[in-house]
Amino acid sequence: MKLDDKLAKTLHITKPTIVLDKKKIIANIDKMAKKAHAVGIMFRPHFKTHQSAEIGTWFKEVGTNGIAVSSLSMAKYFAENGWSDITVAFPVNMLEIDLINSLALNIRLNLLIDNIEPVLFLETHLNNPMNVLIEIDTGYGRTGLHWEATRSLLYIVRMIQGSKQLRFMGLLAHAGQSYSESSDDKIRKIHSETILRLKHLKHLLFQEGFNQCLLSVGDTPGCSIANDFEGIDEIRPGNFVFYDLKQHQIGSCSLDQIAIAVACPVIGKYPERSEVVIYGGAVHFSKDYLLNENGEKVFGYMTYFENDQWGAIEESAHISGFSQEHGKLKIKKDLFEKIKFGDILLFLPVHSCLTANLHRNYVTLDGKTISRFNSTF
Amino acid sequence: MKLDDKLAKTLHITKPTIVLDKKKIIANIDKMAKKAHAVGIMFRPHFKTHQSAEIGTWFKEVGTNGIAVSSLSMAKYFAENGWSDITVAFPVNMLEIDLINSLALNIRLNLLIDNIEPVLFLETHLNNPMNVLIEIDTGYGRTGLHWEATRSLLYIVRMIQGSKQLRFMGLLAHAGQSYSESSDDKIRKIHSETILRLKHLKHLLFQEGFNQCLLSVGDTPGCSIANDFEGIDEIRPGNFVFYDLKQHQIGSCSLDQIAIAVACPVIGKYPERSEVVIYGGAVHFSKDYLLNENGEKVFGYMTYFENDQWGAIEESAHISGFSQEHGKLKIKKDLFEKIKFGDILLFLPVHSCLTANLHRNYVTLDGKTISRFNSTF
Repeated sequence: MKLDDKLAKTLHITKPTIVLDKKKIIANIDKMAKKAHAVGIMFRPHFKTHQSAEIGTWFKEVGTNGIAVSSLSMAKYFAENGWSDITVAFPVNMLEIDLINSLALNIRLNLLIDNIEPVLFLETHLNNPMNVLIEIDTGYGRTGLHWEATRSLLYIVRMIQGSKQLRFMGLLAHAGQSYSESSDDKIRKIHSETILRLKHLKHLLFQEGFNQCLLSVGDTPGCSIANDFEGIDEIRPGNFVFYDLKQHQIGSCSLDQIAIAVACPVIGKYPERSEVVIYGGAVHFSKDYLLNENGEKVFGYMTYFENDQWGAIEESAHISGFSQEHGKLKIKKDLFEKIKFGDILLFLPVHSCLTANLHRNYVTLDGKTISRFNSTF
Repeated sequence: MKLDDKLAKTLHITKPTIVLDKKKIIANIDKMAKKAHAVGIMFRPHFKTHQSAEIGTWFKEVGTNGIAVSSLSMAKYFAENGWSDITVAFPVNMLEIDLINSLALNIRLNLLIDNIEPVLFLETHLNNPMNVLIEIDTGYGRTGLHWEATRSLLYIVRMIQGSKQLRFMGLLAHAGQSYSESSDDKIRKIHSETILRLKHLKHLLFQEGFNQCLLSVGDTPGCSIANDFEGIDEIRPGNFVFYDLKQHQIGSCSLDQIAIAVACPVIGKYPERSEVVIYGGAVHFSKDYLLNENGEKVFGYMTYFENDQWGAIEESAHISGFSQEHGKLKIKKDLFEKIKFGDILLFLPVHSCLTANLHRNYVTLDGKTISRFNSTF
């Protein structure tokens, strides 16, 4: 149940710490890369989840050359760490034009737009030609040109074609609506619909004489569950490198594939309410939660550590709430008795991207400390 | 509505950035310090919200000598920055005994316990005598010995009294239940109840021959709203230094007192749904929200910037959701038209402690960059 004392010592764990199982990460990377390669499409992993130069090198092993990131700051970090083909899968922030121009001197930087405004801006402010992708909203409703706005799409593509500094690269979609689904079938349906809509637009562009148009899709649920990528040129999943309880709940992964856990010391025991309080709060996990079968908010599940790895979760031991640094663990009586002050318990997080973002370093089960880009500018 | 272009340039804002109004912070500090001094009790501000050595110095101006923090790491940071009387208002984490012993060599460190286990542990592991406070749960139900568990309390105090390394300092409570209230009256009721329960225990200890017992209370709502602190020796509010929308909603502060805002560039415009998308997401704000009158989740309100300060919020422009780096701003049509790509909008955050924790630096309206302890270990 608790982390092995010897291992805790080896890993120097005395406060809330992210522990990574490198074997599981490598297996997650391998599986996704093989899936892409099997159907002959490019694997352009999104690095926003791990944000680590070291973990980036593990992707080199499967032949990864191009990556996606979610900010220009992150692009800079990975450019400085040897990556030379980076898509910023986030709408262009015009205020960072200086950084865009300086990055483009050294790497192939692919930018994302969904409006004529940034096109006009880039055309007059770029120092050198650059690739742009047009983001398409295939149903998520966050960013992107709506997939039915075909006249606007043609207008923007023509404008790009006529510009001196921009090269049209293709269409990109993030079907983020898949994260709120709960069955394989529904996620597959969103995935197919996304591809269909992108292919429809590509066909339309082809009819208008634009015969070069890459199609890129990206969500972890779709990329994990679906097998049909016909017509797609690249996938950009990110979360799959660690996965998490949310991805497990919606069916993207098995519990065994979750490669991230948070180790937290026990600092309080309250037998009258069968609760343990851990040193581990909103500043170590974030506040994302899921609902269990009883409709209770679950901010993390305790996991067992056996045979040098974690895996099974204890459904009767969930984090029921966070303060800034405290976590409240609801736990059934017989387990409660086994937990002592100073024990280190392991928890699987609900949303690994946000949990990881709160830490500067990871430790791996084999005892290495891995640094990450602290995305907090 | 948007941040003044000239000011944005002076402050070098190109991506999500916390802006502080130093005048408001100083006013918040002054007001709280005066309140404490007027009734002759110690003002021991909690530094978990700002976590900044620089902002710490602003407290020196009102004569602050002792502070509270929420982790030993934070105690170390402030000890290194000149603070010599620090209460760690968080249960002792036995795994950090080495840090406890090393800090205690240089400063007066006050520890918090609520169980015999850490008492026994400290007695055998401390190198030098140290002050301990007993945390009392006066109704919040997180940590602390329940206020009715008087036999346990006496047992622990006697054990401390009989120990070589521990000196009993007093009783500490955090009435965190006040954060979920919505009226002055209810917050005042919680505050009075907390004080009453602590005084009852102090009296009990007095009857048993323990005549030295400091009483410490701490929540920002209670300290902001209540005026009766009779029998209390110190207050430890933290959030009040910045305040936020949540504190405004429950009545702790006026909008004018909110001293923190997040500046975010506009990166998307979607007229068909009257939504603007900002560069500013869960990694810049955290995911705390409040509910507006229509029952919608509000993750932040846009504020107007006029006469060199922000103040009024625009209720028709609220952040309705966050992804990792995106924020969706629901906004009424006439305002929508006035917003352009590349504008910098200002937002008041829902929970300043968690928002601030996500940033390494602040900028002040007068153009200074202020660093903070990045609590992420």
